[in-house]
Amino acid sequence: RSSEPPGCSLRLPGAAVPTGCAAGRAPLAPSTRSDIRDCSADPPYLPPTATNTTARLAVLRGILRTHGAHAYIVPATDAHMSEYISERDARLGWLSGFTGSAGTAVVTRDEAALWTDSRYWTQAERELDCNWELQRTRTPPSIVTWILKVVPAEGNVSLDPFLFSIDTWNSYSRALHGSGRTLLPLETNLVDQAWGDQRPLPSSSEIYSLPAEFTGSSWQEKVAGIRQRMEQHARRPTAVLLSGLEETAWLFNLRGDDIPYNPVFYSYTLLTNTTISLFVEQARLSEEARQSLRSGCPGPLCVELQEYGQVSAHLRRYAQGNVTVWLGTEYTTYGLYAIIPQEKLLEESYSPVMMAKAVKNTHEQEMLRAAHVRADPIPTVPCRLGGDFRGLSASMHFAGQAQEHSRGPSFQSISASGLNAALAHYSPSNGSSRTLSAREMYLFDTGGQYLDGTTDITRTVHWGEPTPLQKEAYTRVLMGNIDLSRLVFPSNTAGRTVESFARRALWDVGLNYGHGTGHGIGNFLSVHEWPVGFQSNNVPLEAGMFTSIEPGYYQDGEFGIRIEDVALVVEAQTEKPFLTFEVVSLVPYDRNLIDLSLLSPEQIRYLNSYYERIRAHVGPELRRQRLEEAYAWLQESTEPFPVSSAGTAAAGSLALASLLSVLLSGLGV
Amino acid sequence: RSSEPPGCSLRLPGAAVPTGCAAGRAPLAPSTRSDIRDCSADPPYLPPTATNTTARLAVLRGILRTHGAHAYIVPATDAHMSEYISERDARLGWLSGFTGSAGTAVVTRDEAALWTDSRYWTQAERELDCNWELQRTRTPPSIVTWILKVVPAEGNVSLDPFLFSIDTWNSYSRALHGSGRTLLPLETNLVDQAWGDQRPLPSSSEIYSLPAEFTGSSWQEKVAGIRQRMEQHARRPTAVLLSGLEETAWLFNLRGDDIPYNPVFYSYTLLTNTTISLFVEQARLSEEARQSLRSGCPGPLCVELQEYGQVSAHLRRYAQGNVTVWLGTEYTTYGLYAIIPQEKLLEESYSPVMMAKAVKNTHEQEMLRAAHVRADPIPTVPCRLGGDFRGLSASMHFAGQAQEHSRGPSFQSISASGLNAALAHYSPSNGSSRTLSAREMYLFDTGGQYLDGTTDITRTVHWGEPTPLQKEAYTRVLMGNIDLSRLVFPSNTAGRTVESFARRALWDVGLNYGHGTGHGIGNFLSVHEWPVGFQSNNVPLEAGMFTSIEPGYYQDGEFGIRIEDVALVVEAQTEKPFLTFEVVSLVPYDRNLIDLSLLSPEQIRYLNSYYERIRAHVGPELRRQRLEEAYAWLQESTEPFPVSSAGTAAAGSLALASLLSVLLSGLGV
Repeated sequence: RSSEPPGCSLRLPGAAVPTGCAAGRAPLAPSTRSDIRDCSADPPYLPPTATNTTARLAVLRGILRTHGAHAYIVPATDAHMSEYISERDARLGWLSGFTGSAGTAVVTRDEAALWTDSRYWTQAERELDCNWELQRTRTPPSIVTWILKVVPAEGNVSLDPFLFSIDTWNSYSRALHGSGRTLLPLETNLVDQAWGDQRPLPSSSEIYSLPAEFTGSSWQEKVAGIRQRMEQHARRPTAVLLSGLEETAWLFNLRGDDIPYNPVFYSYTLLTNTTISLFVEQARLSEEARQSLRSGCPGPLCVELQEYGQVSAHLRRYAQGNVTVWLGTEYTTYGLYAIIPQEKLLEESYSPVMMAKAVKNTHEQEMLRAAHVRADPIPTVPCRLGGDFRGLSASMHFAGQAQEHSRGPSFQSISASGLNAALAHYSPSNGSSRTLSAREMYLFDTGGQYLDGTTDITRTVHWGEPTPLQKEAYTRVLMGNIDLSRLVFPSNTAGRTVESFARRALWDVGLNYGHGTGHGIGNFLSVHEWPVGFQSNNVPLEAGMFTSIEPGYYQDGEFGIRIEDVALVVEAQTEKPFLTFEVVSLVPYDRNLIDLSLLSPEQIRYLNSYYERIRAHVGPELRRQRLEEAYAWLQESTEPFPVSSAGTAAAGSLALASLLSVLLSGLGV
Repeated sequence: RSSEPPGCSLRLPGAAVPTGCAAGRAPLAPSTRSDIRDCSADPPYLPPTATNTTARLAVLRGILRTHGAHAYIVPATDAHMSEYISERDARLGWLSGFTGSAGTAVVTRDEAALWTDSRYWTQAERELDCNWELQRTRTPPSIVTWILKVVPAEGNVSLDPFLFSIDTWNSYSRALHGSGRTLLPLETNLVDQAWGDQRPLPSSSEIYSLPAEFTGSSWQEKVAGIRQRMEQHARRPTAVLLSGLEETAWLFNLRGDDIPYNPVFYSYTLLTNTTISLFVEQARLSEEARQSLRSGCPGPLCVELQEYGQVSAHLRRYAQGNVTVWLGTEYTTYGLYAIIPQEKLLEESYSPVMMAKAVKNTHEQEMLRAAHVRADPIPTVPCRLGGDFRGLSASMHFAGQAQEHSRGPSFQSISASGLNAALAHYSPSNGSSRTLSAREMYLFDTGGQYLDGTTDITRTVHWGEPTPLQKEAYTRVLMGNIDLSRLVFPSNTAGRTVESFARRALWDVGLNYGHGTGHGIGNFLSVHEWPVGFQSNNVPLEAGMFTSIEPGYYQDGEFGIRIEDVALVVEAQTEKPFLTFEVVSLVPYDRNLIDLSLLSPEQIRYLNSYYERIRAHVGPELRRQRLEEAYAWLQESTEPFPVSSAGTAAAGSLALASLLSVLLSGLGV
């Protein structure tokens, strides 16, 4: 699954909002884009997928007036800055109709606008009605520029401070500063008020302990490790506040199902040097979980259970003492942060729990490796390809859901053919599904949750005769994947400084992709696990971290390509402790789409050694499962490439010229 | 000239101080380093280059007590955050003896310590006496950690706020926050008090107008352009405050010689929408300069001349009005910044003058190109090599100071052979010069100030038989230079995201270098011109910007390699407006040190086309100057390489194994 466009993360410090967000569009997209909607027609034209939001907006605007607010900012996230949210937290989706996972809405007394990045522009055009203006960018400054135009001077711009990161709040606050408008935090959420009793109820399912065989260490060991980090810190923090849902789930080896695709549950933790407070709906804990948590009572390893809603009050009381609270500023909400007096805060980008979780120990590494070998798709197509297959059904053949330890998908599979794949995050549920054909490219991006690990992989295939452009673009995406995967780099290198290696082969001919190059991944946790990856707010790469590597290319209106693997950061075979990647996704690429003459001898050698590893690890597993057809396919697909074919393409400008002529002929020039 | 280690800049926001600063050491340096000084011996051993600072420290400590201060922080910079400073501002050097350009000293009532980065460790060990503890890092948090150990709780940590950037101040302030210590700004500089009448006087030389033929546009056009940017900014600033010396020099096309190697003069400018105030010692302006500045009086293009020392008072008065002052936070001092109320500030990393200056117009580009062709060294060695040559005298043969429009060197030439070159910034003035020999590597890094442009180039040569390691390391440095120089990348790409291309060939075998990869350069201005370059606080690359590209490799105690060119960002030959570099330094590399078998066919093709350009541009110039010997050398040095030699080296692990065995044998293993 592809990550945010570089630098467009919700969690990115507002101060550093880059120019890259709006520039993330695939380079061949037309620079002036016409909206699918035609709101100037009479009657306006809207696609059937649009939601009528007139009544909802009217109710919200009424509430806005009673609070004396002139604008209300609605984000796409929840109180834990989660990437995936429960239906109950889908305020933006309910209000606007837009169901993409990244966006911000602002509703004033007369206007409504939605900001989202390039991955979601087409989806937004299909889902918004004419009450909504679509803004094709997502930075707080651009939102404020709009607000300054439509909100009167002396007006109130209000929001729910428990739904905004510290940085986003600061970014709005700074940008509005001196403008006469006031940034007004409101305790009650106005969208929830408008939503009323139609709003889904909170989850009531069980929260359970992960069996010991699926944990890297016991929760008591993890707590001891975090307390050691507290003691060793120069500021001597007395407590760590955890508000990320995966932080609490990881620390206590607990799982739940409050959020789709992510086995987490609503919770907060305040871990002090002598006590442990877990804020969670207690009745939902399994008996076993409760016993484990209470086994150290009384004592410093006794977990005090408190109601989820009590966290603010508890934190307010705790912060009155002579304390120092350590928290991760990248994902703590401003609401929670503002409770603690400045001088009692120890602010770092990520909490020590996030940092500890990022580096997998040997057992966790083994589990994640095993999950990938077992779960990654082995397509039994092309023989299964029938004229009737639709994207969704085709993808079912790939997702390894019948496998051992399976707990369902780790995200909504992306299975898209032809022009649908040009949307990096297309899913076939929105009425635009189309018949698969052997004449098209087909992109599938799937992943599973398993008790031992979370998986994520993308392959793109073509079962017929690809065009020269498709083949060149696919090969260049693959070259990028290879160049980053085989990179040797010093320890402590930040991902953002090396992610261009995944783009260079595309850049060479003026192509690019508009999303990030990779993200961390968890052991039965998030498929996008922070703080690992290649973006500006990711931490430096260390041995033991897992990240996806996933360059792509999207030709607007025609096809999409992405090649994604998950890789473990390991020590390289250099004298000094340099690092490199070990790819743990073991699935061959599509030979039909590889133009060997573009590859260098080193790239072909790398590919061949990767294929050897696939044969060695996956072959025996397929035999064990008696999947002879798949085994034969695997052998055929991993046949070594001749190194002598490398670099036989005409160099540089010639390759470019041929690509250009293809592009131009495609555009009918 | 090589730039700061990545992320170690003085100007880097304190919040983002990276781990890379301390890790900048060449990877093969011993991890536990023994100091050249032996302060535990009786009597202590000090090299003859150390300065006795006992008396100076005693005077400063007396002053410290009278101000109730427990610690005083002394930076290496001046009130304009200049990289090069005048003798009058060399407070750190006078106090500690350390003459490196980057460092911070802290003096308490009993202790003294100096922080500097890896480029200067050896130099610091040679220059400090035993009053000083050397700290081999340079981040404010590490300084504060030390301060917290030695300064009592409730103690005062004081400094001169006009010598610290906003970010550095904030970084100290945040780190001390809640610790009980107070960060105390003092109006008078305590080192200046201690220095007394021994402190050098300010410069009194003439400040002159640049002839029109050497400017890209008139100062009136530049002022109009900046006022246009002010009008177009959403915040509608009423004024721009310029405190960088090159900002004022560029804006008014004025030059002076207050700072070594940089033709600037002490000044500030407050440019409002209706007025222009230039703060400068008026008597020093040439008659012509004064007439030009006053030619628009009275009116919006009239420059009001005010005394340099009046800037704070003037700014304080101006800030009382209904105004918004735009400034560059990367290089404005905290002292100046704190004068303006928060709500009247428009803070951006760089002022609009810095941004305008960064993109050279066609005439400026032509001038810089011409300066490089004319001025870059054409070595007439090896025939000139005699056994008696010392580094400094050898370098004189390379610096083109007899050339047209010359105004002296743009920095102190680095000319170092053998182990001296392992210090990236060695200069032969400190008593360690040694005899040049044909058996050694020789690194020379020179540049000139010319009325049309500032130049900077580094070449490394070997006149005898290089070792396999020297040859492999040189070739890999060259591969890095080539890979970055020929990179095609989208517009708006940040330099920091692509600089690793200059490191990859070294990384492949576990080697690296500890400094930045490049920096902007001016038209008869700074040799390190902000905000262009490859560091995290540089702005995205745009066509018309110039940057150096200068990977290197330093084998501690043995040799040093750096290959530096200056390149112009130009549009690439892709359909979409992608960018690439055009190298404007036109000097061949050392054939004797190139192992062709490591290069790819693309790298050899690039090298050959670069050599063709050298022949086409430099050949005729040498003939014109009747330098037949040099012309013959040029032809020989730019002979095309056979592409068929590419990539014949044993691949990957083999190349590594051979390199390792060389390294190990070199270490006597």
